[in-house]
Amino acid sequence: MIAKTPEPPYYAVIFTSVRTDLADGYGDTAARMIELARDQPGFLGVESARDELGITVSYWESLDAIRAWKQQAEHQIAQQRGRQHWYEAYKTRICKVERDYAFDRL
Amino acid sequence: MIAKTPEPPYYAVIFTSVRTDLADGYGDTAARMIELARDQPGFLGVESARDELGITVSYWESLDAIRAWKQQAEHQIAQQRGRQHWYEAYKTRICKVERDYAFDRL
Repeated sequence: MIAKTPEPPYYAVIFTSVRTDLADGYGDTAARMIELARDQPGFLGVESARDELGITVSYWESLDAIRAWKQQAEHQIAQQRGRQHWYEAYKTRICKVERDYAFDRL
Repeated sequence: MIAKTPEPPYYAVIFTSVRTDLADGYGDTAARMIELARDQPGFLGVESARDELGITVSYWESLDAIRAWKQQAEHQIAQQRGRQHWYEAYKTRICKVERDYAFDRL
């Protein structure tokens, strides 16, 4: 669902990826990483969608929170397995969210 | 595919949406908007994925380029039809991309 983030400024990590055909362990690890991220200090929310391309955007209070998440031990192992097996290519973009606006039918 | 963006800094618009069940005209308009965006000054690239959630990230040279795109006449009409028909809810986040890194198997 659409992440309920606070008023800007805050930070976003846009992770765009193309998968290989190797599914082994990917789904479990991806789910586990979301669960782990939620427990990280400074985590604000996450949004994810995949068809040919996968886009996962996670939201964070600060660049320090993003750095700590990148270096989290279990996440490091998952990143390594991602490069070895699961991803054909990816790009990670670290952003400062400066402004946002929303529409909701309800 | 993964957008080939220049060295940061540049800007990103993260558009996250939940669709209604009304498909009428949506696909054509979405494709037309991508085509129009590509012709806008300062456009750098776009990435899109949808399953339950849709995430489209467009990349731009400047905040002025984003503002001009938001106000482009045909895009304005599409935004209005989106609120009337196609979207249950959406959130738009305007970001400055400060850093990026990539992995490519090739």
